[in-house]
Amino acid sequence: MAVNRKVLLTSRPKGIAQAENFAIISRADPAPEAGELRVQNLFLSVEPAMRGWIADPGNYAEPVPVGSVMRALCVGRVLESKTPEYAVGDLLFGWFGWQEEAVVASDAVIRKVPDNGLSPSLALGVLGINGVTAHVGMSAIGQPGPNDTVVVSTAAGSVGSAAGQIARIMGAGTVGIAGGPDKVRQCVETFGYDAAIDYRVDGLAAALDAACPNGINVYFDNVAGQISDTVYPRLAIGARVVVCGTASIPQWDPWPVGPRIERHLLTKRARMQGFVIFDHMDKWDSAVDQLSGWIREGKLHYAEDMLDGIDACPDAIAGLYRGENMGKRIIRIAD
Amino acid sequence: MAVNRKVLLTSRPKGIAQAENFAIISRADPAPEAGELRVQNLFLSVEPAMRGWIADPGNYAEPVPVGSVMRALCVGRVLESKTPEYAVGDLLFGWFGWQEEAVVASDAVIRKVPDNGLSPSLALGVLGINGVTAHVGMSAIGQPGPNDTVVVSTAAGSVGSAAGQIARIMGAGTVGIAGGPDKVRQCVETFGYDAAIDYRVDGLAAALDAACPNGINVYFDNVAGQISDTVYPRLAIGARVVVCGTASIPQWDPWPVGPRIERHLLTKRARMQGFVIFDHMDKWDSAVDQLSGWIREGKLHYAEDMLDGIDACPDAIAGLYRGENMGKRIIRIAD
Repeated sequence: MAVNRKVLLTSRPKGIAQAENFAIISRADPAPEAGELRVQNLFLSVEPAMRGWIADPGNYAEPVPVGSVMRALCVGRVLESKTPEYAVGDLLFGWFGWQEEAVVASDAVIRKVPDNGLSPSLALGVLGINGVTAHVGMSAIGQPGPNDTVVVSTAAGSVGSAAGQIARIMGAGTVGIAGGPDKVRQCVETFGYDAAIDYRVDGLAAALDAACPNGINVYFDNVAGQISDTVYPRLAIGARVVVCGTASIPQWDPWPVGPRIERHLLTKRARMQGFVIFDHMDKWDSAVDQLSGWIREGKLHYAEDMLDGIDACPDAIAGLYRGENMGKRIIRIAD
Repeated sequence: MAVNRKVLLTSRPKGIAQAENFAIISRADPAPEAGELRVQNLFLSVEPAMRGWIADPGNYAEPVPVGSVMRALCVGRVLESKTPEYAVGDLLFGWFGWQEEAVVASDAVIRKVPDNGLSPSLALGVLGINGVTAHVGMSAIGQPGPNDTVVVSTAAGSVGSAAGQIARIMGAGTVGIAGGPDKVRQCVETFGYDAAIDYRVDGLAAALDAACPNGINVYFDNVAGQISDTVYPRLAIGARVVVCGTASIPQWDPWPVGPRIERHLLTKRARMQGFVIFDHMDKWDSAVDQLSGWIREGKLHYAEDMLDGIDACPDAIAGLYRGENMGKRIIRIAD
């Protein structure tokens, strides 16, 4: 048996997890027992929400215990099965953790990965949480119409890029907000935004006014913070704000303040709604089908930021928050 | 013709309008022309939203011009009609202004006041904007279920008291937040709240924790500010926040800050929505019918804070914000 390398959370960070909050160990796992599987991880996910899984109080998931393998979504292949649901060779998407191999109970599996001719790694991005999050958030909450202007923050990110393209497929005009010239170019050239704004150099307020002369009908927000504070006063009557993430807020202790939101919601008769994709698993399969179709038709593009090997894990979350990735960050363990 | 006394806005206040921002003049109106009516005002309304009609930028209505009659909803009787829609003697609800008589175009009329055996003054309160606002906000946005806990701010106010009772009629448990022992007593004894909290003396956080052990499913908010900031962290999963007013914020220039809301909406999968009743006029008649029925059945109680005569107008808005009224503030001009 190959030695199984695992990434443990060794200390709880204040704010964003850094490389020094993790350690890599080698440890062989016991054989799977009844109801369990051994999975060879092929791809590990890295995502902004990991900050919350590790650190934040009052989050929607229990924090990862210090000393345990870092919680992560992965795509893996079944090496050994003690459950009738899955057979050796099956390709699965689930909570297998930052490790080369995982011995897990069958309920760690979220979905079988469909054999649809597209890369299995997409199950961690545009055909996984990210794409389905964008799909549900845009179709169930944002609900853009053909004459609407949709603004997306972290517009080149794995959720944002899908959200913007889905809004475009739904007929809306789309404006992306991203950081840096590479991402702004990617927004327009790869993801088809009508306009993209570099919040780091452009005057965001003036740029939004120019790009959204009739106001903003849908704001798909992944960041909160100053970017959102500049968007809110520009909401149109009846606007919808999809609260998908708060990536620009490094920590919530002490709780940050910002301009009050109530008056915007009142005068614009606007709706602001948070959601967590795990409440919407009933929509998963139909969303993945539709997203897969759009990819094959060339209407939906994606970018992967592929790192290699388990050694890339410890710094990978901090890197996301440094803004260094140009697409869905994934760590390749095996093909 | 009787001399017609009118209340003019004579200067634009910074913040809440005070008596010195108004003047009372006597001036006879010209006879109504084609398409116009002369109305004898019976009751004039005083409401928190007047602050916004007068002063706030970015509001949902054009500000009242300095030098003109103060905009107000009124109930009046037709004295003279040059329009086929309304006859002498009709009882009408509309934008007749703070004056004893009004000569207005027929489109100033919002509704005929139904002859339902209840006082015409109710058309300015529980059977008017306030009650219909509570009804639409609670039924279309709040949507409480039988096991839900509903918290209402300014719970003894004209909107809040109706909102709380409607939630109770819909089967929810209700908790009112009000200022001062008289209003707290009124909440429980008159308006049937299961619990009422005096935000001025009770520790609001601890009192909410005690009254809402399973969190807050619906927050019907008329105030924003610190009271709301104490409610938001206590929202339950899937909560709805009905943004109906911002009465605790005296001015929005400079724009006030408060604890950021995004993380609450995200982790609680909560929805926060503002609305303006004039977008929902299609629901008016059915709401008034249902509210009237509940009043006759003894399920819906109301309180009126009746002032007498036009001289009471100038200080009436400031008085609302001093919290001195114990119900819907109305100025009686004639019966």
